[in-house]
Amino acid sequence: MADIRIVLVEPSHPGNIGAVARAMMNMSLRSLTLVRPRQFPHPEASARVVDSVREAVAGCGFIAATTARDRDQNFRVLDAREAARRIIVESERAPAAVLFGSERTGLTNDDLESSHVLVRIPADPAYASLNLAMAVQIVAYELYLALDPAAAKRPGAPPRATPLATPQEMERLYAHLAEVMEEVGFRDRTQSGTHLMGRIRRFLQRAELDENEVNILRGLLTAVQQRRRRAQ
Amino acid sequence: MADIRIVLVEPSHPGNIGAVARAMMNMSLRSLTLVRPRQFPHPEASARVVDSVREAVAGCGFIAATTARDRDQNFRVLDAREAARRIIVESERAPAAVLFGSERTGLTNDDLESSHVLVRIPADPAYASLNLAMAVQIVAYELYLALDPAAAKRPGAPPRATPLATPQEMERLYAHLAEVMEEVGFRDRTQSGTHLMGRIRRFLQRAELDENEVNILRGLLTAVQQRRRRAQ
Repeated sequence: MADIRIVLVEPSHPGNIGAVARAMMNMSLRSLTLVRPRQFPHPEASARVVDSVREAVAGCGFIAATTARDRDQNFRVLDAREAARRIIVESERAPAAVLFGSERTGLTNDDLESSHVLVRIPADPAYASLNLAMAVQIVAYELYLALDPAAAKRPGAPPRATPLATPQEMERLYAHLAEVMEEVGFRDRTQSGTHLMGRIRRFLQRAELDENEVNILRGLLTAVQQRRRRAQ
Repeated sequence: MADIRIVLVEPSHPGNIGAVARAMMNMSLRSLTLVRPRQFPHPEASARVVDSVREAVAGCGFIAATTARDRDQNFRVLDAREAARRIIVESERAPAAVLFGSERTGLTNDDLESSHVLVRIPADPAYASLNLAMAVQIVAYELYLALDPAAAKRPGAPPRATPLATPQEMERLYAHLAEVMEEVGFRDRTQSGTHLMGRIRRFLQRAELDENEVNILRGLLTAVQQRRRRAQ
């Protein structure tokens, strides 16, 4: 991960510090700094503890400070997504820092003296105060995505233990289905002119059937035919 | 906010439920359903409590289930951002639901039976397990952004003239199909121990059938039954 420091200023609740540490781990962030924590954190949180914001951001280039404000007279306010992209770019030149204020009071004007921009997490204006660890989680998530846009794109098509049915196999399935529809007299039941077979084909194509699944359907069709013939 | 249900399946820690409720409020989500919570939540969480996932999603259209998996054999896996856009679009037609599994075990295969897609939150592969409330926070945040027309374009979902079939309609379809399979003697033809009905359900869920499509399939099943009875 890029060199990005998460800085908590005067956090009150050790539970929050643990939650922040976990949220950071989830998003590949490793550097946590605590400024005057009210209680010392759990040992496993392995944070650096300092006395001032200035000390926390020493050696950093770009510094962003989270806020609940929409606008500010002195700072540009970026939303979390935009800020994350900016922070990633800046962190390629020098370590970057993101400051989070205490649960009750947020960041003071003094805390902001080194900051370049404010970061706002979009939220319901009627209920905009996020829990501290939640705020870190969202910023960390946006940083993770901004660092690797491909991370968001990685999933998608299911991996296949069994190959997708080939077009020929699908055609044989449709032919078999048409045969059964014919045998059971289903073909005429068009709904207001729609072509039933066409609709069935479309949703079966959408299902992206594999070979086993086609075999299951064909087995079912064969069973229907055998029973019918035996019954006749 | 759009009509979107957050569903927690067997949550263990009341603290998590409270944190989820707050995370939802922050992102304008109002509908929380708990399936068999280990402890009853704090009164202020004002959640609906039910006995089954089926009950939780009754009346819903599109259903998404969160997962830690990158890929899945039976489901399309969307990342949180893409899923959120999709859920917002779908929720304009019918209530949508997002399922979250328990802290320890996640969602079971049974929990997924009504789902259409899986949702994955991008995270560090070496430390990918997010706290439950954090996972809800991220999904809720993405839903909040996806709802805001200014936030991002909304590609994704195929246009749908007809609503997605409801979970109840899908259950009736599966019951009808099971009946026909029984009548034609198809039930015993398991392939090397796989459960045919389970496989059929999974690929039909993947197809995201709408009401008309379910009616076509049920019409076909009825035709099979009538012909067989007439032939006997």
